[in-house]
Amino acid sequence: MAERKVPYVAQLAHVEILTPRPEETLWFFKELLGMSETDREGQSVYLRAYEDFYHHTLKVTEAPAAGLGHVAWRASSPQALSEAVARLEAAGFGLGWSDGDLGHGPAYRFRTPDGHAMELLWEVGYYEAPPEQRSLLRNRPQKRPLRGVPVRRIDHVNLMVSEVEVHKQFLVDHLGFHVREVKIGRERREVGAWLSVSPLVHEIAFMRDATGVGGRFHHVAYWYGFPQHLFDLAELCCDHGVRIEAGPGKHGTTQAYFLYVFEPGGNRVELFGDTGYLIFDPDWQTVVWDVANEADLEKSSIWFGPNLPPTFYTYGTPDVQAEPATAPERRVAGD
Amino acid sequence: MAERKVPYVAQLAHVEILTPRPEETLWFFKELLGMSETDREGQSVYLRAYEDFYHHTLKVTEAPAAGLGHVAWRASSPQALSEAVARLEAAGFGLGWSDGDLGHGPAYRFRTPDGHAMELLWEVGYYEAPPEQRSLLRNRPQKRPLRGVPVRRIDHVNLMVSEVEVHKQFLVDHLGFHVREVKIGRERREVGAWLSVSPLVHEIAFMRDATGVGGRFHHVAYWYGFPQHLFDLAELCCDHGVRIEAGPGKHGTTQAYFLYVFEPGGNRVELFGDTGYLIFDPDWQTVVWDVANEADLEKSSIWFGPNLPPTFYTYGTPDVQAEPATAPERRVAGD
Amino acid sequence: MAERKVPYVAQLAHVEILTPRPEETLWFFKELLGMSETDREGQSVYLRAYEDFYHHTLKVTEAPAAGLGHVAWRASSPQALSEAVARLEAAGFGLGWSDGDLGHGPAYRFRTPDGHAMELLWEVGYYEAPPEQRSLLRNRPQKRPLRGVPVRRIDHVNLMVSEVEVHKQFLVDHLGFHVREVKIGRERREVGAWLSVSPLVHEIAFMRDATGVGGRFHHVAYWYGFPQHLFDLAELCCDHGVRIEAGPGKHGTTQAYFLYVFEPGGNRVELFGDTGYLIFDPDWQTVVWDVANEADLEKSSIWFGPNLPPTFYTYGTPDVQAEPATAPERRVAGD
Amino acid sequence: MAERKVPYVAQLAHVEILTPRPEETLWFFKELLGMSETDREGQSVYLRAYEDFYHHTLKVTEAPAAGLGHVAWRASSPQALSEAVARLEAAGFGLGWSDGDLGHGPAYRFRTPDGHAMELLWEVGYYEAPPEQRSLLRNRPQKRPLRGVPVRRIDHVNLMVSEVEVHKQFLVDHLGFHVREVKIGRERREVGAWLSVSPLVHEIAFMRDATGVGGRFHHVAYWYGFPQHLFDLAELCCDHGVRIEAGPGKHGTTQAYFLYVFEPGGNRVELFGDTGYLIFDPDWQTVVWDVANEADLEKSSIWFGPNLPPTFYTYGTPDVQAEPATAPERRVAGD
Repeated sequence: MAERKVPYVAQLAHVEILTPRPEETLWFFKELLGMSETDREGQSVYLRAYEDFYHHTLKVTEAPAAGLGHVAWRASSPQALSEAVARLEAAGFGLGWSDGDLGHGPAYRFRTPDGHAMELLWEVGYYEAPPEQRSLLRNRPQKRPLRGVPVRRIDHVNLMVSEVEVHKQFLVDHLGFHVREVKIGRERREVGAWLSVSPLVHEIAFMRDATGVGGRFHHVAYWYGFPQHLFDLAELCCDHGVRIEAGPGKHGTTQAYFLYVFEPGGNRVELFGDTGYLIFDPDWQTVVWDVANEADLEKSSIWFGPNLPPTFYTYGTPDVQAEPATAPERRVAGD
Repeated sequence: MAERKVPYVAQLAHVEILTPRPEETLWFFKELLGMSETDREGQSVYLRAYEDFYHHTLKVTEAPAAGLGHVAWRASSPQALSEAVARLEAAGFGLGWSDGDLGHGPAYRFRTPDGHAMELLWEVGYYEAPPEQRSLLRNRPQKRPLRGVPVRRIDHVNLMVSEVEVHKQFLVDHLGFHVREVKIGRERREVGAWLSVSPLVHEIAFMRDATGVGGRFHHVAYWYGFPQHLFDLAELCCDHGVRIEAGPGKHGTTQAYFLYVFEPGGNRVELFGDTGYLIFDPDWQTVVWDVANEADLEKSSIWFGPNLPPTFYTYGTPDVQAEPATAPERRVAGD
Repeated sequence: MAERKVPYVAQLAHVEILTPRPEETLWFFKELLGMSETDREGQSVYLRAYEDFYHHTLKVTEAPAAGLGHVAWRASSPQALSEAVARLEAAGFGLGWSDGDLGHGPAYRFRTPDGHAMELLWEVGYYEAPPEQRSLLRNRPQKRPLRGVPVRRIDHVNLMVSEVEVHKQFLVDHLGFHVREVKIGRERREVGAWLSVSPLVHEIAFMRDATGVGGRFHHVAYWYGFPQHLFDLAELCCDHGVRIEAGPGKHGTTQAYFLYVFEPGGNRVELFGDTGYLIFDPDWQTVVWDVANEADLEKSSIWFGPNLPPTFYTYGTPDVQAEPATAPERRVAGD
Repeated sequence: MAERKVPYVAQLAHVEILTPRPEETLWFFKELLGMSETDREGQSVYLRAYEDFYHHTLKVTEAPAAGLGHVAWRASSPQALSEAVARLEAAGFGLGWSDGDLGHGPAYRFRTPDGHAMELLWEVGYYEAPPEQRSLLRNRPQKRPLRGVPVRRIDHVNLMVSEVEVHKQFLVDHLGFHVREVKIGRERREVGAWLSVSPLVHEIAFMRDATGVGGRFHHVAYWYGFPQHLFDLAELCCDHGVRIEAGPGKHGTTQAYFLYVFEPGGNRVELFGDTGYLIFDPDWQTVVWDVANEADLEKSSIWFGPNLPPTFYTYGTPDVQAEPATAPERRVAGD
């Protein structure tokens, strides 16, 4: 059975973000995105979307600067967890086991080549709605909330890296990710890569940090399923003072409808209006966009809608520069 | 690695339907659903949606009566194909290998307990668009068509069976399907089951044939991704004389937006407006709806929108009765 | 200038509904429909949608039984008001002037032949948002709310009458309404009529009360502009215990997307997902649907989507019968 | 009755555009926008959207350069036509009567101060669908077409002028238009004005020609009613080689969802996804956006979505410059 490649990872479990303005960050996720608070401990608050099945998918932690806390993956099985841990350890990326956290059991901690904190776990706590929040839908863990334009579930995470190839290969080799799409820039270097362990085009993307810094957080994405909701949320953002960076529009890579906004703490959040296309082919060949080619450059990031602004390629958290540089080659960077 | 259950099947590859009115059936799929003809041979025409990657996902074959030709699954790997064939053969369901067909290589033929024809294959032919039909989107095999309200890809198939449990277990045991949702009726018998090998809630569903006949075809479903398209297609159906059976509405099971219509040859076709919810949990526990319970009965089939008519539970192809029976217990049957 | 027919009425100004459960009724309008309370006095609470320009468009008044308080029209001009009042008075429908109410000046009170209370007024109070609620959109009186699926503006009102022709002619003769569509039933009697003073197909509709009672309230409608919002609200209704009577679907008459629900006090409320078609032709000829004709019967009420249930033709407020009658001819009644 | 201001105009009847590439222009309107050809004469082809009630709303005429042929208005009544003609004649803008054209009777021809050709008419020919094109919807003049993403009706026209105030006043004084919104730029000069005779925010807009030329055509707009259709059309444009200038996005003025594309002959065409907000207040006070104010500048053109490119303010037909100038003050011009 060795030839049947099965990723060690089954899904993106949760993401921890850091914020210097926890109250406003929580307002954003709860009142605009309709997320629910399930727990609080120390400087952290645990949140989930109304169709997320686990205890939380977002951990918001107060910190001096915005940025990524960590990314947590759920393994495909207890055995897959053991095997992946062995690989990470052998390769020197491992940091050891944590006892777990609210909402999940022991987690193996490790770092990407650029140093982004990640963890891998198997045991999870499922969300149990209190009686008044139970839906008649037996496949929905909670009633649809009455606040904001409520997101349905966590979708993916995007990290800024110094070298895309290195990070891409890291996830392929140690966790069994599939490479779904890549963008090639000048000198044949990759400027973006989309990887997944499921038919989603990505649970994680890496994009080259145009500032060269790397090791930073680009965005976490939540999913609606209905494109109209991007417009509804854009309305709320305009009327309630949340800054939109780009969208609504449709990506070329992934083919999904997107909206990028900044939560008040400074982290970028993407909203996905649909699933884009899905990949069921077990023999999928990576889609290659050559962004030195004009048509590919234009269509890969944006199939239609607004162009992505320069900040998209230079701004990440923590923020490393007051003013985003605007060198003309920036746009060749991936998205 | 034995504990990491991997389905032998990767995806629904194509469906063959039989029609006594091939010209009108083709008009429906081409002019209303915007599908493209890729080949013709004998009494068969091969069609695909514009985001289907393979040679075809629908084979329309002229026959005296409407019904199912066969359902084809693509294996997860060549090795998975061998293993699954061995299992099917050992269990006595196998019929042997075919040399293949236009658009795919050798296929192992087998039958469900009720006799529905199926096949399992690995080698597929990919669709290559002629230059004038090539999209600038490198992840889209063809330009979006200018005809009708074009569907994007094949989604799932639904079969009417004499015993749901038997068929459900058949796919679990021999092909490694996961059971995502079931409906339990009176005397604790299952009246419907939804199975998948991917995060989709189903690539196949079985529903109890309320006529008791079994072995019949309920529907094939194509996917839009955008709920508005169900309304657009409903408009075209009303204006162009295609009979709508039910919808647009939203299912409780799967949570997807649906529309059911009859193609002119008599087969039921479902259109899916979104993906519904997706299952990424590797330890998913089957969702059980107890349709003896009033709330479950009401919400499982329809979360909101039109009730399903009695024909939904009794009409399949081939049609076994001129007039669908209307006994009051019919509605307890699954959907 | 006599030939240039100008209606005396410019628009539907507001509707007053009566409810035996004011707290729950207000919860529905505020938390699900996102309406804002602008005032309270005695047993009444004044509400508006976020794009309504006036002080209120809905007055909710506590009363022993659900029903209509009154319908208020804004005249086309002060002079039009005087002329219309003279006509109503001469014809014996007038009840005299009121001093006005919160949010508007003097109003001339009158009754329809069946006795529905109406008033006509010119002076209105405009809503002034407090600073924190001001939108940057200079044509939007208030920020889009963060609660529920917020409706945008009042759309129309529908009344159940003993004789459609009589009521239709009453509004034509005394207020200058145009008759946009009618439905003719058996013995050539009208069973429904849609009238307007603007390109909307109706600001008011009359439908024959299948119980024969008349003088009752069928529904008030609020408008979204985006069909997806009907589905969003249907989700909230299912999850939060509000009864849906019919929809989402598309009407034949008016061509609009609809959803009918019951607010907890018992009054029917319609939500409009789009505008339907609009009438700009100054020489419009009334569209006649002959519901003795099967195709007209089927398509006039519902172009596609769920059939309207028997209650639609028999239930109005105040409720005159515990159990809606279900005589088979009911469905011929208008909608 | 003098005080009840009634516009002499009831609606935009049709627009004639000129194209140097008639075949490709017709392909665009017929295959992408799903419009139908109703007649042909000389160098002209007559088209209509499927919910347009008259013989045509678009006349496409072959000419050496792209541009406006003329704009035709339907009067409110025969008497209104006479009165308006008298006013135009007295003011020296009249050009005299034409005998009419295919699809309408005698029309009075006149010019705007900048010289745009217009006409006013009463007698119109209604479209009569052949039997196979008749809809069961009695308020729909034709079945919904199976081609492209079909537009429903003509919406408005936008003209580039040397002086906005002059043109705005021209329509107010001679045809009775209402001024719904204006944009004020530097030195308090108007840079854009939106006028209507109905609850639509505009049937016509004037914007200052940033090149100073004036007398040119900016765009004609067709209406969908459903925002998703803008995305569907954007897909078709990207895949089938039609240039998108801006959108999909949402305007601040009018609040409508928009998409701007160039038909192959070079004329700009706007698609409207919804109606935006509607004005029913008979005492409407013109909304004033002060685009010297930063917030107004940003939100008036675009509430959310892509910024309008410089061409939006400088490119009109006929094209007066090979390369649109890009002086930074351009963006202050209206839209």
